[in-house]
Amino acid sequence: MTITNEHSCHSLGIVEKKYHTFAKPPSKMTLESGAELGPITIAYETYGRLNDKGDNAILLTHAFSGDSHAAGYYESSGNNDKPGWWDFMIGPGKGIDTDNYFVICPNILGSCMGSTGPGSIDPATGQPYGLNFPMMTIGDMVETQKILVNFLGISQLHAVIGGSVGGMQVLEWCVRFPEMIRAALPIATTMRHSALAIAFNEIARQAIMADPNWKHGNYYSGQKPDMGLAVARMIGHVTYLSDEAMRRKFGRRLQNSNEFSFGFNGDFQVESYLHYQGHKFVDRFDANSVLYITKAADYFDVVEQIGKPLAKTARRLKYLVVSYSSDWLYPTYQAKELVQSLKRSGQDVSFCEIEADCGHDAFLIPDQRLTNLIKGFLDGIS
Amino acid sequence: MTITNEHSCHSLGIVEKKYHTFAKPPSKMTLESGAELGPITIAYETYGRLNDKGDNAILLTHAFSGDSHAAGYYESSGNNDKPGWWDFMIGPGKGIDTDNYFVICPNILGSCMGSTGPGSIDPATGQPYGLNFPMMTIGDMVETQKILVNFLGISQLHAVIGGSVGGMQVLEWCVRFPEMIRAALPIATTMRHSALAIAFNEIARQAIMADPNWKHGNYYSGQKPDMGLAVARMIGHVTYLSDEAMRRKFGRRLQNSNEFSFGFNGDFQVESYLHYQGHKFVDRFDANSVLYITKAADYFDVVEQIGKPLAKTARRLKYLVVSYSSDWLYPTYQAKELVQSLKRSGQDVSFCEIEADCGHDAFLIPDQRLTNLIKGFLDGIS
Repeated sequence: MTITNEHSCHSLGIVEKKYHTFAKPPSKMTLESGAELGPITIAYETYGRLNDKGDNAILLTHAFSGDSHAAGYYESSGNNDKPGWWDFMIGPGKGIDTDNYFVICPNILGSCMGSTGPGSIDPATGQPYGLNFPMMTIGDMVETQKILVNFLGISQLHAVIGGSVGGMQVLEWCVRFPEMIRAALPIATTMRHSALAIAFNEIARQAIMADPNWKHGNYYSGQKPDMGLAVARMIGHVTYLSDEAMRRKFGRRLQNSNEFSFGFNGDFQVESYLHYQGHKFVDRFDANSVLYITKAADYFDVVEQIGKPLAKTARRLKYLVVSYSSDWLYPTYQAKELVQSLKRSGQDVSFCEIEADCGHDAFLIPDQRLTNLIKGFLDGIS
Repeated sequence: MTITNEHSCHSLGIVEKKYHTFAKPPSKMTLESGAELGPITIAYETYGRLNDKGDNAILLTHAFSGDSHAAGYYESSGNNDKPGWWDFMIGPGKGIDTDNYFVICPNILGSCMGSTGPGSIDPATGQPYGLNFPMMTIGDMVETQKILVNFLGISQLHAVIGGSVGGMQVLEWCVRFPEMIRAALPIATTMRHSALAIAFNEIARQAIMADPNWKHGNYYSGQKPDMGLAVARMIGHVTYLSDEAMRRKFGRRLQNSNEFSFGFNGDFQVESYLHYQGHKFVDRFDANSVLYITKAADYFDVVEQIGKPLAKTARRLKYLVVSYSSDWLYPTYQAKELVQSLKRSGQDVSFCEIEADCGHDAFLIPDQRLTNLIKGFLDGIS
């Protein structure tokens, strides 16, 4: 595996977060559950320029706890700030080449990174929604993304790309709006959650709801359910790694000395890592958003729809399905089931399993193989 | 797989829990950490009869949340009560045939099922130990078991048998007291925890310690940390199952209807199952015992000692190592590492990986293949 560091050479530089608000009163957006929601704000960033024909746009959909800041740096954040979460992939000359493509990355509905979610103010009460926020689905996220894409003057996307829960959004796009996309690149994802994936999500939710500070979601004016949220994040982190990755990264190495503490503060480096990840997450994410987004992921199921011949468009979509050999959250066998369903329905499908020992989160780690795959795939779309 | 139900035909009938107390003042037992503890009570049950030569005793070591009630029924519990946890394996004519063998099953040190643990009364204060209970190791558990075995008038065991954390005790017996055993049967276990296993244990501990009712372990006179303990148990349960087992057992089946609730009470059967397991555990187990026993399991490491030629006895031990193909907590590759270490040190080792899709907990489910393996192995020990 060659790790490239080209993003330091060809950076996008300063980028800006933007907002699009719609579903304003008196009309609201009707969600899949039947509930109504509005106004809705979707935070997004764009990189590169939309060409005159308006046909070079790529929609990038982010994972569960991601955000719209996929590449570049914020002006306000100083020199030491981290770039966007896929900065190594997006920029001039990179896998998603911003000299050729116009990239849009929206924050998902239900999140807490600028888009409307359970922590947003409910105009009906002037207070945060909390659990009054309606349950939303991956389909609802995609509906809001379509509104944003149309608002930006784009009638057809060159491609939709995303990993994990982002990959679910990609598949939902293919099911709902196939006429609006030419190609789809679902990475490290699944057509629907297994019982194991639901179980992990439910335990994370239980950890949050067990925190007395959670108060049925009504905690915005007081102490937050930080302890429960930290435990939830630790559970998530274990599912993002792999047995091999954890052995390589931590093994049984001790944190502070060569001797056991014979206490409960954590002896092993893997324990300190989990504590760090758990408590870092608390600073940047809203516990209620975890509840809503994990539930949307659990509900997601396109097994029936993805395999059906396209009713809405006769044109075949081009797919590149990517899985990772050590991903045990959405294992390769699930990616292969997706590939078979797509092939049966007559789509143009390529599939690649990348050998990597770093688990589900592998797509967030610079890897020239994924970069080359994406670059080649995007350039081959006609 | 043939499931036998012979335990209903050849039951042990009524059994009785007994107690042995030692390390009484003024002398206490010195634990591996250097701390002193006493008096110590070990609860145990026995099945079958010790023969005149005293050479037909089998020590059975239980898993993390197990107890000394391995077989038969309690007189007091009425007709509807459940038999011991390995009743299908232990009894007249069964895998561990009580017509031939005398079986001893002690509750481990640090537990809450009759043996001394953090919920026991500290004679120094008259209050439960709580976190004043000294950290104990798998080695300490085995030391107390040796005292019990000697108390019962046994100088050498025919075999030591146990699964999971019970298997760790088996391996610790081989390292500490090889002269006292003829054979060892470690099932679904490991020479030491991987980073992944430590991670799951630490998240379970964090879930307990995040519960405000935990109060640094000092909760015995008030509300218990039930919510945290339930979440901890749910985490454990996921690691005991497998992806395949959960797909077969639950899939994506809904609990109450064919429609999503669009709420947070749990739609899927796997969620209800986890809730049930979590809350059932709260009724029978002590949260502090979870902390101490999981920590002992994390500390356990016999990689160095098990591979060394036996210093204490020239006699070779006979081993049967059993793993399960779908156990991802202690996967078969770890059992194979154990087998290699034992073979390198010149031991007499048999190994069997049982094909089963039910995960780590498979050894607790009736399976004629394991029964036959154990029966054949025990009868072949000379």
